[in-house]
Amino acid sequence: MTSSRLHAVILAGGSGTRFWPLSRRSAPKQLIALLSDRTMLQETVARVAPLVPPERVWVVTGREHVDEVGRQLRMVGATGPVIVEPVGRNTGLAIAVAAHRLVELDPEAVMTVLPADHVVAKPDAFLRSVSQAEELAHRGFLVTIGLVPRRPETGYGYIKRGAPLPSDGPEGKGLSDPGAFLVERFVEKPDRKTAERYISQGGYLWNGGMFIWRAAAILDEIRAHAPALAKAAADIATAVRSGADEGRMRDLYERIESVSIDYAVMEHTARAAVIPVEMGWSDVGSWAALDDVAEHDERGNVVSGRVLDVDSERSILYAQDRLVATIGLQDMIVVDTPDATLVCRKDRAQDVRRVVGELEKRHAQEHVVHRTVQRPWGTYTVLEEGEGYKIKRIVVNPASRLSLQSHHRRSEHWVVVAGTARVTCGDRVYDVATNESTFIPPQTKHRLENVDPSIPLQIIEVQSGPYLGEDDIVRFDDDFGRK
Amino acid sequence: MTSSRLHAVILAGGSGTRFWPLSRRSAPKQLIALLSDRTMLQETVARVAPLVPPERVWVVTGREHVDEVGRQLRMVGATGPVIVEPVGRNTGLAIAVAAHRLVELDPEAVMTVLPADHVVAKPDAFLRSVSQAEELAHRGFLVTIGLVPRRPETGYGYIKRGAPLPSDGPEGKGLSDPGAFLVERFVEKPDRKTAERYISQGGYLWNGGMFIWRAAAILDEIRAHAPALAKAAADIATAVRSGADEGRMRDLYERIESVSIDYAVMEHTARAAVIPVEMGWSDVGSWAALDDVAEHDERGNVVSGRVLDVDSERSILYAQDRLVATIGLQDMIVVDTPDATLVCRKDRAQDVRRVVGELEKRHAQEHVVHRTVQRPWGTYTVLEEGEGYKIKRIVVNPASRLSLQSHHRRSEHWVVVAGTARVTCGDRVYDVATNESTFIPPQTKHRLENVDPSIPLQIIEVQSGPYLGEDDIVRFDDDFGRK
Repeated sequence: MTSSRLHAVILAGGSGTRFWPLSRRSAPKQLIALLSDRTMLQETVARVAPLVPPERVWVVTGREHVDEVGRQLRMVGATGPVIVEPVGRNTGLAIAVAAHRLVELDPEAVMTVLPADHVVAKPDAFLRSVSQAEELAHRGFLVTIGLVPRRPETGYGYIKRGAPLPSDGPEGKGLSDPGAFLVERFVEKPDRKTAERYISQGGYLWNGGMFIWRAAAILDEIRAHAPALAKAAADIATAVRSGADEGRMRDLYERIESVSIDYAVMEHTARAAVIPVEMGWSDVGSWAALDDVAEHDERGNVVSGRVLDVDSERSILYAQDRLVATIGLQDMIVVDTPDATLVCRKDRAQDVRRVVGELEKRHAQEHVVHRTVQRPWGTYTVLEEGEGYKIKRIVVNPASRLSLQSHHRRSEHWVVVAGTARVTCGDRVYDVATNESTFIPPQTKHRLENVDPSIPLQIIEVQSGPYLGEDDIVRFDDDFGRK
Repeated sequence: MTSSRLHAVILAGGSGTRFWPLSRRSAPKQLIALLSDRTMLQETVARVAPLVPPERVWVVTGREHVDEVGRQLRMVGATGPVIVEPVGRNTGLAIAVAAHRLVELDPEAVMTVLPADHVVAKPDAFLRSVSQAEELAHRGFLVTIGLVPRRPETGYGYIKRGAPLPSDGPEGKGLSDPGAFLVERFVEKPDRKTAERYISQGGYLWNGGMFIWRAAAILDEIRAHAPALAKAAADIATAVRSGADEGRMRDLYERIESVSIDYAVMEHTARAAVIPVEMGWSDVGSWAALDDVAEHDERGNVVSGRVLDVDSERSILYAQDRLVATIGLQDMIVVDTPDATLVCRKDRAQDVRRVVGELEKRHAQEHVVHRTVQRPWGTYTVLEEGEGYKIKRIVVNPASRLSLQSHHRRSEHWVVVAGTARVTCGDRVYDVATNESTFIPPQTKHRLENVDPSIPLQIIEVQSGPYLGEDDIVRFDDDFGRK
């Protein structure tokens, strides 16, 4: 059962580095699987699915993640529009642009704004609060979901609730169970003492950045409280309609200051309402925050992957296929990935960004990409690089192909280990079956294609030559518009 | 300048697991490089080289390590005999057999017995004590090097020194500087309280298992105090002379109980002498012991390899090529290898053996072999295994070849990335140059050979087939006697 006018607008623009080495610039937190087999974006889509049909799930993301976002959405069957931001401009512009496009589609559309990288342990409570908020939205309120605080957290903003909202009918229809309130005020991240006062005083809720409102209503409020933002969003919507090119879109985005919707509108509007709810929410802001949301073993550890532990306590031990052995750890974080390992005291989890900063300075690659790199046609994984050679495992999705390309300085040996490859090499087009191989000389136009509609193609590529950089590529034709 | 009759007998039979994951069953501590580019065995050879010429360096090791020991000795130019033990029987039998073979060569031979896996930070002090001991050995003494204790260690045996040794001439020739003493008694590893008493009382030295004596003298004492051991060693020496086969040799070794030379002889003989010396010695019994012998940074860390550290203290951070990032660690051990990582509290370093025990129980491979496996002809490294395929990098030493072999169930694609391969495949013999490839079908006799006298051959092998175990191999001819 889905509501007729509810759309989800999932904000997936983050570029966080606090989950390094699992997250990378090319794979920020919302695009990785942290607590389940699904990525956090996919979990967000699934969470709202009982109320929002797949074609009404909108996602806002950055240019560099659009391929991966598309791939992840297809995997969970979401078919709504993806709004690509040429540059990130915080939640203000993202929401304003989405609201514009929604109003064009349906002037009465209700949008629920959801960050793509939060965890909700109790999805039913979440769905109840969204349904309840939808009714308030139809009455003109800008509704925030207020999370009942579990501790005097200094990492979140707070919402002070005001008077209870009057119900709109004799039975108090829709407002009967947990209640809804006017917002007295939004407050930014407090210091420790202030946070403690909020908790002991009561009436304060965590602000998780989840909103429900009529698209037209938020546009009205943006016009009233942030006219420059409103103008920018209107210009962008017009530019989209007229099919403006990438350069023009970037200009329009870059012109406007980064501002959050909280700061631009919510702190000023008189129409803000809040629904307090306890839904096992966390923004999982660091590895240490897994303690809030993941299951623990009997010694208080969160353990995942191939870990062999002896006597550790209260630690987060996160491995994949490689073996990680731990002995006697207390309050530690260990995260292992194919090309990098993090070992960190739990109370220093915020300093992971210092490591990422240092890697940036050293022009390292381990904060940028994973060993397995996503491409629109599939993936490649660098298995080894040596003097004069590089070995990759290449997986080509069913019915997909790489660009028609050539390399100046390297040749390539391809051994097919699963599926069948259709190979273009110079003037010839031929099939290479599993356990067969072929050779691509330098300066020869070639293409690798998987014509099978259902089975992925896997090949091992051995590159050989004096220069093996990814930039030695000339593309002649590409299904994905790359040149 | 080398002494005319001094031989080194290096005991390299250990199979320790306390340096896992750097040490493995196939690469025990003495065969790994812990503190320098050279392995501990190679360091031991180099340490004694000023006194012992290369052809008089003997090494005793087990059957499964003989190839690797040979390879390491060649690298440092040691050319003496390698005595292969079919099974390890502690220092008693190893020393007795070596002494027998030395006496056959030269009845006046002096042997210095050295463990292959100890560290000596002050090699000059070591050499002075060996020279001094050699003179005592010629006078009939069984000399032990006694290490001046730095703390009340409970992990070592102790030697109580007795009366000073009388010098043998008017000037006290050779005994002038640090002095030498009769041994009052050898004592086994003490408890904490006893060790503290030894230190405060003085006159106690650590027993590091380093001995210098005439080969004939130690044989006399073995005959007197351990006749069964003497008989076994004599039988083995006879069997070696008569070219006995492996089965016969194993019988002879298995017949005798494991016993240390300390227990069999030193605790009973009246001819024991000790030379106290401070030479920066450690038996580096665990990762934590690196603190005794390795250099520290300004925060007390021992750091090696690709480590990016933020604020750690008193920790041992040991990486190789993969990136290891550490934040805020205190008194921790982190050891990273291509296929396994250890994270361990420093005071739990002894429990590494529990991890190895657990891996054994689970029939894992990470305690047995490294990702790179040594072979008599070179090395192979498994880069990746997947459903139906396995990828190896194979390095063939100059002028070396693998066996003539075939596989029932797998085919092999070989891409040459450095050097030239001479390939036998069925009836054909042909050369494959760098950047060329070839294909070996299943059930086809084949051989890979590097005919170049100086350049290693590197190939990437992609195996393909329904079964890819190392045991699917039939050998028809082999340079290394394997069948």
